[in-house]
Amino acid sequence: MLKLHGFPVSNYVNMVHLALLEKGIAFEYVLTYPDQTPEFLAKSPRGKVPVLETPQGYINEASVILEYLEETGTGQSLLPRDPQARAYVRSLMKEMELYIELPGRSCFVEAFFGGTVPRAIKEKAREDLAGGFAALRRHGRFTPYVAGAEFTLADIVFLYSVDLASTVSKGLFGVDPLADWPAARDLLQRLGEKPHVQMLARNRDAARPAFVEAIKARLAAAAAAAQA
Amino acid sequence: MLKLHGFPVSNYVNMVHLALLEKGIAFEYVLTYPDQTPEFLAKSPRGKVPVLETPQGYINEASVILEYLEETGTGQSLLPRDPQARAYVRSLMKEMELYIELPGRSCFVEAFFGGTVPRAIKEKAREDLAGGFAALRRHGRFTPYVAGAEFTLADIVFLYSVDLASTVSKGLFGVDPLADWPAARDLLQRLGEKPHVQMLARNRDAARPAFVEAIKARLAAAAAAAQA
Repeated sequence: MLKLHGFPVSNYVNMVHLALLEKGIAFEYVLTYPDQTPEFLAKSPRGKVPVLETPQGYINEASVILEYLEETGTGQSLLPRDPQARAYVRSLMKEMELYIELPGRSCFVEAFFGGTVPRAIKEKAREDLAGGFAALRRHGRFTPYVAGAEFTLADIVFLYSVDLASTVSKGLFGVDPLADWPAARDLLQRLGEKPHVQMLARNRDAARPAFVEAIKARLAAAAAAAQA
Repeated sequence: MLKLHGFPVSNYVNMVHLALLEKGIAFEYVLTYPDQTPEFLAKSPRGKVPVLETPQGYINEASVILEYLEETGTGQSLLPRDPQARAYVRSLMKEMELYIELPGRSCFVEAFFGGTVPRAIKEKAREDLAGGFAALRRHGRFTPYVAGAEFTLADIVFLYSVDLASTVSKGLFGVDPLADWPAARDLLQRLGEKPHVQMLARNRDAARPAFVEAIKARLAAAAAAAQA
């Protein structure tokens, strides 16, 4: 049986979790937080989650796990069969990760945890997010799903990356990337109505306050240590 | 016939170029620079290269093109067949891209083009590069190739990302990530002896001076415009 190591507030973990649920693959959830201990680094070389434990070993990086589930898993396929169409879905996933998720993520400490992100990093994130959302708008189909008529892995990345990055953009830069983009807002709403998505959202929302407090406490301790 | 759109100084372009050559796939090279014109953005939504033109359309993002070539191309396979082994190669590729290439790239303007990168971004890059190289050391096999006994896509990413990021690390931070890591240095040398790699390196080295001058001129013009 597969084991998903992660925690319910992580959007990368939720991407894999949703794929497992949508595909109907049996798995066990192992509550795991990012960790730099030698034991955990042996499973996840950068100390991150999600990690998928298989009978053969551990697999890290959400996008790699998603490909593995397509190659080995049962249930609904979340990538098209045609190579050009697969490449289209994968390029959307990659663009959302590099040009939306990562710049948004560079500001999480300030947007969600009360910390401060250096101005140069915020300026870069603002510029990168504008470029990333413009690229998605140019490249996505939204008819109604990101890559067309079918629900694919690109929708999973969209759901969990665009929502958070939009929150960062609104909170830190006063710009709502979805404001004049009803097709994207409609898709977020449509995805949000899926029962598995609602279940993951309930788990995330229940776990978030304690997680945010824990991160805030860690940031405060680090700041105190830096001043000592 | 496939067409590779790119230019010979781009390490991402060279990843795809080397895969095409190693696999023996026929293609045409279309000299193309990154570009934000509507015409080019219709082919590459973020205005970047490489772009692969196929009979069905355009594919962007190097890692996506590499997967497409594995799925459709003839010649030597550069991914193992076993799903767990494929996931291992892909996770190495992803780790090198996110934790080595991207932090290195955030400092290219200063390391290669005489510009200045804000201190906060350099500090983050220094930290991220240290973590990224530690992860690669932990996760790679180097026996003698990154993922084991076979040459794979992970070696192509290693060749073109680690070399540049090491140059950034040495030049900006005084840290050679390969200094006490002979297996990685040996692999770089071994890969550098491949005839296709040597050909791409000659093309790159011939094109680089003019490219660097063009970027420097653009940076100077932008700085002048900002002061005007």
